[in-house]
Amino acid sequence: MLNYHIFMKSKTIIQTLFFVTIVSVLPTFSIPLQGQNTTKEDALFIRQIYNLELTEGLTYPWLRHLAKDIGARLSGSPQAAAAVEYTKQMLDTLGLDSVWLQPCMVPHWVRGEKEVVRISESAMGTVQLNALALGGSVGTGPEGFSAEVVEVQTFEELEKLGKEAVEGKIVFYNRPFDATLLNTFQAYGGAVGQRVNGAIEAAKYGAVGTLVRSMASGLNDVPHTGGMYYKDGVKKISSVAISTNDAELLSNLLRQGAVRVYMRTTSETYSGKRSFNVIGEIRGREKPDEIIVVGGHLDSWDVGEGAHDDGAGCVQSMEVLRLMRRLGYQPKRTIRCVLFMNEENGSRGGKKYAEEAERKGEAHLAAIESDRGGFTPRGFTFDGNSAKFEQKFGAVQAWLPLLEPYYLHLKKGGGGADISHLKSLGTLLIGFEPDSQRYFDYHHTPADVFEAVNKRELEMGAAAITSLVFLLDKYGLE
Amino acid sequence: MLNYHIFMKSKTIIQTLFFVTIVSVLPTFSIPLQGQNTTKEDALFIRQIYNLELTEGLTYPWLRHLAKDIGARLSGSPQAAAAVEYTKQMLDTLGLDSVWLQPCMVPHWVRGEKEVVRISESAMGTVQLNALALGGSVGTGPEGFSAEVVEVQTFEELEKLGKEAVEGKIVFYNRPFDATLLNTFQAYGGAVGQRVNGAIEAAKYGAVGTLVRSMASGLNDVPHTGGMYYKDGVKKISSVAISTNDAELLSNLLRQGAVRVYMRTTSETYSGKRSFNVIGEIRGREKPDEIIVVGGHLDSWDVGEGAHDDGAGCVQSMEVLRLMRRLGYQPKRTIRCVLFMNEENGSRGGKKYAEEAERKGEAHLAAIESDRGGFTPRGFTFDGNSAKFEQKFGAVQAWLPLLEPYYLHLKKGGGGADISHLKSLGTLLIGFEPDSQRYFDYHHTPADVFEAVNKRELEMGAAAITSLVFLLDKYGLE
Repeated sequence: MLNYHIFMKSKTIIQTLFFVTIVSVLPTFSIPLQGQNTTKEDALFIRQIYNLELTEGLTYPWLRHLAKDIGARLSGSPQAAAAVEYTKQMLDTLGLDSVWLQPCMVPHWVRGEKEVVRISESAMGTVQLNALALGGSVGTGPEGFSAEVVEVQTFEELEKLGKEAVEGKIVFYNRPFDATLLNTFQAYGGAVGQRVNGAIEAAKYGAVGTLVRSMASGLNDVPHTGGMYYKDGVKKISSVAISTNDAELLSNLLRQGAVRVYMRTTSETYSGKRSFNVIGEIRGREKPDEIIVVGGHLDSWDVGEGAHDDGAGCVQSMEVLRLMRRLGYQPKRTIRCVLFMNEENGSRGGKKYAEEAERKGEAHLAAIESDRGGFTPRGFTFDGNSAKFEQKFGAVQAWLPLLEPYYLHLKKGGGGADISHLKSLGTLLIGFEPDSQRYFDYHHTPADVFEAVNKRELEMGAAAITSLVFLLDKYGLE
Repeated sequence: MLNYHIFMKSKTIIQTLFFVTIVSVLPTFSIPLQGQNTTKEDALFIRQIYNLELTEGLTYPWLRHLAKDIGARLSGSPQAAAAVEYTKQMLDTLGLDSVWLQPCMVPHWVRGEKEVVRISESAMGTVQLNALALGGSVGTGPEGFSAEVVEVQTFEELEKLGKEAVEGKIVFYNRPFDATLLNTFQAYGGAVGQRVNGAIEAAKYGAVGTLVRSMASGLNDVPHTGGMYYKDGVKKISSVAISTNDAELLSNLLRQGAVRVYMRTTSETYSGKRSFNVIGEIRGREKPDEIIVVGGHLDSWDVGEGAHDDGAGCVQSMEVLRLMRRLGYQPKRTIRCVLFMNEENGSRGGKKYAEEAERKGEAHLAAIESDRGGFTPRGFTFDGNSAKFEQKFGAVQAWLPLLEPYYLHLKKGGGGADISHLKSLGTLLIGFEPDSQRYFDYHHTPADVFEAVNKRELEMGAAAITSLVFLLDKYGLE
């Protein structure tokens, strides 16, 4: 029994010709179809998904609007509200079974005036630095302040220095990415603790502020913002990212003698605001209560246009539903696109979604997140905490012959921040994994704009994700 | 018996620590070492190659000089001569066994004044088009000319139209890339005939000029130049590429009625010039007469900076020798870097190299070409005409477990234009295959500049090629 109908409905010559065309452009290398389940029809349907996306995809124009016309979409901002409205309207055009907004409360942080961060005394005299306040940071007050700088690469170094050497100073965290790690997300993972927890650790020793080397793969003048946190009972101090070039300069100057830096930021945190996850779904024909989620996050940082992070993931997730409708595919299970709010500074949307899923007793078979940029696809990574994870991962592996011709791998690895809250429900978590080499040139910067996204790379991602959702829906994870 | 010595010489604590560091950053997934040949030492050495390139690689600064300081390097131009001198000087710094110039004669075509191509009569009136004369095209004369336009997608359509419909007109070739082909080089292959042979075919039916839709993956305003040829006995007519957006516009206007276009180009072909392949080598310790070539082409088109095409391939090829020297690797066989002249409009360098190889009776075990851009590596493609090709390809497959952790595949496919002339000598031809999605956004355009190349992607390519050269050298192809 086939569960999609395209090839079964070739009633007209035109459709038949279309079929022949599809077959003729299948990858020329042969596809060894292994396992009992997958069929040649699956290969043909996946080829149709790619053909449609690469010729008539809407990911690119959707992303153009989200990035260029709406722009940066920090939680609580008017642009975030516009993004909710725009994506809901677009989902409304797709003829889905339901489209709705799921309310959630989000933090509301505002950067304020342009940061001023300046080396005020050094062997080179005065030097203006390329800086961005970290998201969530308190401001310095309108006067700003200046203080001597002390450099560390790790919290262990900070501890060794102790209160004596740190009190009253600005702590400069300067641990770079490890360039030898092939996947830049691993390098990010090895460095981002300085940004996230640096203010807490520095304040424990009496520091008055922190400067953090930007989370970037290379050397340039672009500062990268990003989330940071405070801890109850520890003084909140201002935290600012500086560009990697400026971090190198500052480090060089510190080797030549004492350096003082002047910082001025006017960031403020206001009371939380009401916002929304945007959700659309196609109900399953056979097992409507089994849900497959595909999603990205709608919010972004307040610089650039949130194009790779994560406009790309949003439009790819919407496109999954559009492609299924356009191809006349009627899923067995419920396919749900979720555009999560507030991934960047609180993950309130992701938490809310999981809470509601649990409250309603919804069965989430799998969740796919696209939040690693709109780059050329490499594959998918799989995670899960249920006892049956190995069995599920084994079931997925059987589909590799269908996905390998599209240069996709299937490996163990992380899912994504938004869907991580579904882990305790036994959901198979899946991260879409594009090539990572360029991501940290754009991540959380003014450079993350629409023009940094390549149309075909974005589309290949949408087609890859749709293909995996199709297989998850058709075969489940038994 | 080990044939490299790095780990055997750990005489100092520092070296030992370095070794431990290397081991600790090996990809965390385990590497199944299959076959009799490959060893854990091979995996460690490849990891060393990547570590060195990703932390102290010179590909990026070399490319910066080649692209930004020298710039476009069309055969016969002063910039091509400067590129010969620069790369020879750089090779001279590497402590190789020999560096030399191999003379060859190259065509000398000059674009002349900026092309003027304009829709002079149409339903929209007059429209200026974004155009570049094709390389090798004759000029229109200083007055230019205007003529009615007739559009075709194929030579078959042209033949059907016949002399009656074509004589005195400009033939507009408008076959687009097939977007459904995953590898954009396949799409290029399906469209480029219009550019290469379009003038010959059109002139047979009395056309006075040709306009060719640019060889591009998407729609934009950037025209793509590229090679075209004439045939003895067929009239030489002027040929110009227009941007894909302009091709769409022109096609739309033609559906609304007659369109005339005015063309003016002042291109000229001068007598051939003397130029050079630039060659450097490390002599083999055990089998110096077995040669492994790694190369790219030094010339480029005369627009942009020839960064992806093929500055990237040149600096990657040079880097293979530098990394081997830096790592103290003493090859069994002779490793030769060849920077070919004149790939773009004549392949005279490639032909000359093969002629000399044949004349001297040199045994070329394998040749690797990098000429598909400095993008993130996907793998290598293998070709060859000897009876033993399957056996050689089989030998290579045994190395896959060593290369898969670096996301590299090993497949059958084309080698490259420059090394293709070695095919008849029984050489295994190998094409380095980076991801192809973005290549035809830059290829042969003013947009092919240094800034379009990502440092890490370029370096990953250099490390991948060096790793394969290492394996070819160590194990041969028996």
